Amino acid sequence: MHQLIGKMFAPAFSNKLLNQQHDGAAIDLGNGTKIAFTTDSFVVSPLFFPGGNIGTLAVNGTVNDLAMCGAKPLYLSAGFIIEEGLPMETLWQVVHSMSEATETAGVQLVTGDTKVVDRGKGDGIYINTAGIGLIDSDRAISPTQIQPGDKILINGDLGRHGMAIMAVREGLEFETEIKSDCAPLVDPVFALLDAGIEVHCLRDLTRGGLATTLVEIAESINTHLHISEAAVPVREDVRGACEILGFDPFYVANEGRFMAFVPPDDAGRAIEILRQFPDGDQAAIIGDVTEKSGTVVTMKSQIGATRILDMLSGEQLPRIC
Amino acid sequence: MHQLIGKMFAPAFSNKLLNQQHDGAAIDLGNGTKIAFTTDSFVVSPLFFPGGNIGTLAVNGTVNDLAMCGAKPLYLSAGFIIEEGLPMETLWQVVHSMSEATETAGVQLVTGDTKVVDRGKGDGIYINTAGIGLIDSDRAISPTQIQPGDKILINGDLGRHGMAIMAVREGLEFETEIKSDCAPLVDPVFALLDAGIEVHCLRDLTRGGLATTLVEIAESINTHLHISEAAVPVREDVRGACEILGFDPFYVANEGRFMAFVPPDDAGRAIEILRQFPDGDQAAIIGDVTEKSGTVVTMKSQIGATRILDMLSGEQLPRIC
Repeated sequence: MHQLIGKMFAPAFSNKLLNQQHDGAAIDLGNGTKIAFTTDSFVVSPLFFPGGNIGTLAVNGTVNDLAMCGAKPLYLSAGFIIEEGLPMETLWQVVHSMSEATETAGVQLVTGDTKVVDRGKGDGIYINTAGIGLIDSDRAISPTQIQPGDKILINGDLGRHGMAIMAVREGLEFETEIKSDCAPLVDPVFALLDAGIEVHCLRDLTRGGLATTLVEIAESINTHLHISEAAVPVREDVRGACEILGFDPFYVANEGRFMAFVPPDDAGRAIEILRQFPDGDQAAIIGDVTEKSGTVVTMKSQIGATRILDMLSGEQLPRIC
Repeated sequence: MHQLIGKMFAPAFSNKLLNQQHDGAAIDLGNGTKIAFTTDSFVVSPLFFPGGNIGTLAVNGTVNDLAMCGAKPLYLSAGFIIEEGLPMETLWQVVHSMSEATETAGVQLVTGDTKVVDRGKGDGIYINTAGIGLIDSDRAISPTQIQPGDKILINGDLGRHGMAIMAVREGLEFETEIKSDCAPLVDPVFALLDAGIEVHCLRDLTRGGLATTLVEIAESINTHLHISEAAVPVREDVRGACEILGFDPFYVANEGRFMAFVPPDDAGRAIEILRQFPDGDQAAIIGDVTEKSGTVVTMKSQIGATRILDMLSGEQLPRIC
């Protein structure tokens, strides 16, 4: 996918805004109005999982991409591709969840479209959402703002969304049910910004998880990032599920987790703020941006060795969102 | 579909912007900046047809929805849902066509997303586009602006897109190849506006064609519209194809055709302007808005009788866009 985007889509549509390579495009409309614009399609299978469904994902996924641009999410579009024969009850549950999710995230769904495809030419329902958010005009949050010395923070434990999906797919039952962390990230992001934390970059840890996201950022700014394995919080049940199924939690998708790059002086205060949010008690400083150039991410492992983190090649978990 | 939207989506997401029931939402961002925001998913089958492909449709469909709001289309997002096994060559042709279509329409594709679904769970490729356009702040173009006495104009002959698709599906060959009318409508729309034509409402004649669109508008403003069958241009080859296949050209989808509601004094000048555009030589005044209230559309037939036009029930042509 990374190659497909780099070799086909990026050259075909090359323009200054697309080339930002961020979770969304930041667009200056003039008159002091700056917006972020983003889109995502959702094809998760199964449609329903502990902690959410394709509808909650479709709202929060786009809301969070906007928040990662430092934009206040305001307006969403929704495009439904429905397979002939989908029970109305299923569609209604998804739509109802989307409606609740828009209220929770403080956004309005303002325009939509519905298409029906023949039986066997879809998989129940696919949803695309696009979103518009307003950016405070003096705020620049993007990989290019990252400075050597910045601390890398995450807002909680990793791997729950991916493992919630896998548990359903594989029919596994654990002692405690693993629920997706799917949630809107607007409040924690704006709590950081409103507290005057100098946030340089934000990125949510969705497809490919923490490790892939770190490598993408390191590549895009040609800078060395270093993290400590011991500092990254992973719940015991998630770690156990990963071991049973042969996954690495660092590569598992999350839907309510993000990374923030902040100056070292702000890091402690930022963690205090992040810990005040639901599910945020394990927010942690996991690493830093070094002085070295070169696109590489290293991790000090639990036993003290240092190894290179690679991007996920192939899909560890297809159709996770 | 009309019922699904009315009974499920509209109540679930009810808000002032969604309730505009136009081709897109008009949003005031403050500071004198007003945008239009719209989305469409494209599931056309086959992916390629005379005059275009799913990629050109995906760009022009959303560009035209923005133009119908009187907005200057500027930015697009694209979400691709690709079936595993789609030949790269096919994807490249679609992406290349989209790139060309964005240049022709004067828009930039600024953000995108790609998902891959398992073989058999898609149908080659589905594309969603969402778009943002800028609205001149003093311009109100919507069904509520329609006045009794307004003339109803169309910018050319009807039925080509639908018949181009059907000819490919049915393997029919006519003496002349029927090509889709798929085209961006930005230039003719802005030619009307820039010439000072008092445009009250615009609507493109896509799914459901002219008749369904007229009924939707009449219903939304509780007003009687009257058209003359003889005034509506349909090419002979399109009429012939419709007869062979049992379609009514008034219900066949178009992708480069729109309706404009203008005051009677502006109608003649508007037609002159529309006729200057490629494929616009058959632009015509086809009817008017009467003084009567009541949601009904009537048509004076070729033989002089008056009959009521109904909305298309069921899909005459599924997966036409």
